[in-house]
Amino acid sequence: MKTATRTKKELMRNAQSDMHRHIQDIDLSDREKLALTCRILFDKGHDSGLAGQITCRSDHPDTFLTQRFGLGFDEITAQNLIAVDQDLKPLNGEGMANPANRFHTWIYHEHPEVNCIIHTHPTYVAALSMLEVPLVISQMDTCGLYNDCSFVPDWPGVPVGNEEGTLISAALGSNRAVFLAHHGQLVTGRTIEEACNLAILIERAAKLQLLAMAAGEVRPLPHELAQEAHDWVSTDKRNKVNFAYYVRQALKHHNDCI
Amino acid sequence: MKTATRTKKELMRNAQSDMHRHIQDIDLSDREKLALTCRILFDKGHDSGLAGQITCRSDHPDTFLTQRFGLGFDEITAQNLIAVDQDLKPLNGEGMANPANRFHTWIYHEHPEVNCIIHTHPTYVAALSMLEVPLVISQMDTCGLYNDCSFVPDWPGVPVGNEEGTLISAALGSNRAVFLAHHGQLVTGRTIEEACNLAILIERAAKLQLLAMAAGEVRPLPHELAQEAHDWVSTDKRNKVNFAYYVRQALKHHNDCI
Amino acid sequence: MKTATRTKKELMRNAQSDMHRHIQDIDLSDREKLALTCRILFDKGHDSGLAGQITCRSDHPDTFLTQRFGLGFDEITAQNLIAVDQDLKPLNGEGMANPANRFHTWIYHEHPEVNCIIHTHPTYVAALSMLEVPLVISQMDTCGLYNDCSFVPDWPGVPVGNEEGTLISAALGSNRAVFLAHHGQLVTGRTIEEACNLAILIERAAKLQLLAMAAGEVRPLPHELAQEAHDWVSTDKRNKVNFAYYVRQALKHHNDCI
Amino acid sequence: MKTATRTKKELMRNAQSDMHRHIQDIDLSDREKLALTCRILFDKGHDSGLAGQITCRSDHPDTFLTQRFGLGFDEITAQNLIAVDQDLKPLNGEGMANPANRFHTWIYHEHPEVNCIIHTHPTYVAALSMLEVPLVISQMDTCGLYNDCSFVPDWPGVPVGNEEGTLISAALGSNRAVFLAHHGQLVTGRTIEEACNLAILIERAAKLQLLAMAAGEVRPLPHELAQEAHDWVSTDKRNKVNFAYYVRQALKHHNDCI
Repeated sequence: MKTATRTKKELMRNAQSDMHRHIQDIDLSDREKLALTCRILFDKGHDSGLAGQITCRSDHPDTFLTQRFGLGFDEITAQNLIAVDQDLKPLNGEGMANPANRFHTWIYHEHPEVNCIIHTHPTYVAALSMLEVPLVISQMDTCGLYNDCSFVPDWPGVPVGNEEGTLISAALGSNRAVFLAHHGQLVTGRTIEEACNLAILIERAAKLQLLAMAAGEVRPLPHELAQEAHDWVSTDKRNKVNFAYYVRQALKHHNDCI
Repeated sequence: MKTATRTKKELMRNAQSDMHRHIQDIDLSDREKLALTCRILFDKGHDSGLAGQITCRSDHPDTFLTQRFGLGFDEITAQNLIAVDQDLKPLNGEGMANPANRFHTWIYHEHPEVNCIIHTHPTYVAALSMLEVPLVISQMDTCGLYNDCSFVPDWPGVPVGNEEGTLISAALGSNRAVFLAHHGQLVTGRTIEEACNLAILIERAAKLQLLAMAAGEVRPLPHELAQEAHDWVSTDKRNKVNFAYYVRQALKHHNDCI
Repeated sequence: MKTATRTKKELMRNAQSDMHRHIQDIDLSDREKLALTCRILFDKGHDSGLAGQITCRSDHPDTFLTQRFGLGFDEITAQNLIAVDQDLKPLNGEGMANPANRFHTWIYHEHPEVNCIIHTHPTYVAALSMLEVPLVISQMDTCGLYNDCSFVPDWPGVPVGNEEGTLISAALGSNRAVFLAHHGQLVTGRTIEEACNLAILIERAAKLQLLAMAAGEVRPLPHELAQEAHDWVSTDKRNKVNFAYYVRQALKHHNDCI
Repeated sequence: MKTATRTKKELMRNAQSDMHRHIQDIDLSDREKLALTCRILFDKGHDSGLAGQITCRSDHPDTFLTQRFGLGFDEITAQNLIAVDQDLKPLNGEGMANPANRFHTWIYHEHPEVNCIIHTHPTYVAALSMLEVPLVISQMDTCGLYNDCSFVPDWPGVPVGNEEGTLISAALGSNRAVFLAHHGQLVTGRTIEEACNLAILIERAAKLQLLAMAAGEVRPLPHELAQEAHDWVSTDKRNKVNFAYYVRQALKHHNDCI
């Protein structure tokens, strides 16, 4: 064994570069990625009727792609997504956005690095939100959210006002996610792939936390190691590799999506 | 952004009117709606063998549509529903109603605004009912039941007598739902769509409550905001928009239903 | 409403007779019923690899039908069931029974009214069994097991000896079910239909109990009403009506079974 | 009944020999077994995106078969498995192994009897791992892990270094499994069949433990009986009989696997 004495740092660097060399990205348009993300999330439990919104910046400044209100995540296709302006007005006049999309506009305005936002109320996030406690990261797989998820303990009511936009946008700060008491979750990404991964992660983290809390006392992670794990899984390449896998899964039975 | 200074009230009003303009209702008969509701609820966990009844008023006074006893919710079609009178006697002499339908008759008699009743014992409602505690609404999505669900702490036994009819009908009061200790749930609606939505909601609320109670202490919602959220989601139009979505979902694999 | 003043007793009697008149039984051989029960139970979570046995008396004295060891419940057909004698020896020399079937022989010997035995370790029964507490019936639907399920708090180890046969058979007493700590459940029936219903019920009861215990304190049922509910659902006719429904469900996707 | 007075020991011996005589093994190559194990485990909840690795020794010394990094367990086929050397270098230069495979190399080096290793983070194992408590075996079916599962209470961070290899390999000791706090599980086998069975078992054991801990206090098993049960289910033949069943299940819908 030639690599038995290599340092962990060196091995980690090699692994990252191997990943670039050996695993190819898939080629999809933003419309396709966004529609597929809806299907992926639906399959992973992000289903609470017509609640939840997903958006990404479109090519035109201050306009966004989003799902048409009235359709479920399992019905979204690359074609039926609509483009809206900052006031949620559809550019081609057809359909309407979820009125709660308003706080997306505020986040895009305040956070220029954010290109995709996913807000949902999946079962475990929703149940955990009733306890008014922050998300606790205590397992390796969910470290992508370690020290990266804000907490809003006060529920401001139905989030369709501009007030909720400024509140949630401020809460986000420099994190990538927000956990909203009595409500749900919001994740952001520089790419659609990043946001999709974080959305999957946050529902899984909430499920693990609820299962663990019901059975005993959740123990904290050592900060340095948790931060290292966060950075290890939060690369652009890894988000793309994961996303490509989820897309292949989704296309097995959501072949009407793109 | 032109609407950044609009008040929340104004934005809420606009959203309601947008919904009317942009989302079309589906055109179904009461028989079709009732049969589809059975399939929708079956898929959402309202399955405890042959327990549970669903009824709606029919066109003739003091008669009701209901499922034929002996069939599961996954077997109901628009065709095999039966019409019964106040004494549960089938109008055309075929089949029989669930004998526990008797308390439906009492509710219809005392509550003229009710046109549809759904009574089921889904898993989480049933488990929660063993604790003799009321349903607690602490998450935005379930606010449709906030301050709108009565609690019957004493189980009167097998609910096939007239006694249970008067008991449950009185417990309902001006609420739309009743949570029955050691038993299950009952929701009512001015429309089939409304009742279907509430039935989905109450099982989801029970699941969230059980998950949250197992992990910690459920925290209350601020009354004013919860009441506002209740009213926001309890419009006739929203019930219809949600129902239309559930129907499309159901018809993907329940194509024998209508 | 002509029946508004009828007594509950009278209404219950009428309901039972209506059930006889209006709902037809299905016509199946014992081999078919037993094989279908395997599929029904598999679908309802009675799946722990190759553990679990199901038997019924066959036409010849002191012989039984059972599944061939090595096949899962989802693989059993009317054809591949084997007939064995009291020593578990296959009558036609082919295949072998689960060696743990031995305690079935003891039960059949001591309980002449028993014609079918189902022993399984489904998930919730198995988890509850780790607490060494009896099954608690606290919800109407599971009253078929009220005051009808013995508890064996001491685990005797792998149940393949004659010792376990006498132990479990004695524990059964005049009840229809036994809950075995650190192990699983056993239900019996005068008919295959009765045993199948009880097996479904006991896993559901264990699930409800675990969910409720995790969230709070399970409250007892009033004895008289629980006993009445027990008798109300424990008729031969109701077992057959339920079973017929489960068979129709199973045959939708287990069409290789009979 | 001729065998009513036979001792339990004798009956156990007979059962083992019956199993050899009556149940045939299936004939599969190592590549096929390993690929099928991926599918079997995917179906049984061993799904956390692209995390998890499975390996077995190949015919050439110090080389191993493993899945190609970037593919999920549901995508593995006998054909797309890759052979790697001790440094995780693919023998034919194609693709890459999961960088966390490194600790497999260390285990194979220190444990010559081990021919297959499965490391995963399924939901219940992951949730339980957050409590920093060992796996507790308290139900008969999971006795294959009784006194046979080490516990690593300190999480060393992302397990891609040689440090984690020596740590985990030492922790394994003479057991067949390791439960890793804040991380997941690792099982080993002299055969692929053995490792596959243990992987299924450990996730089931974690699920039972979480359900039971949430509801009450898990009670210990008597040591002698638990050890006897461990040995009873841990034979090579039983591993093969179970595995053959899981393979038949998997091939019903994973027909692209081999």
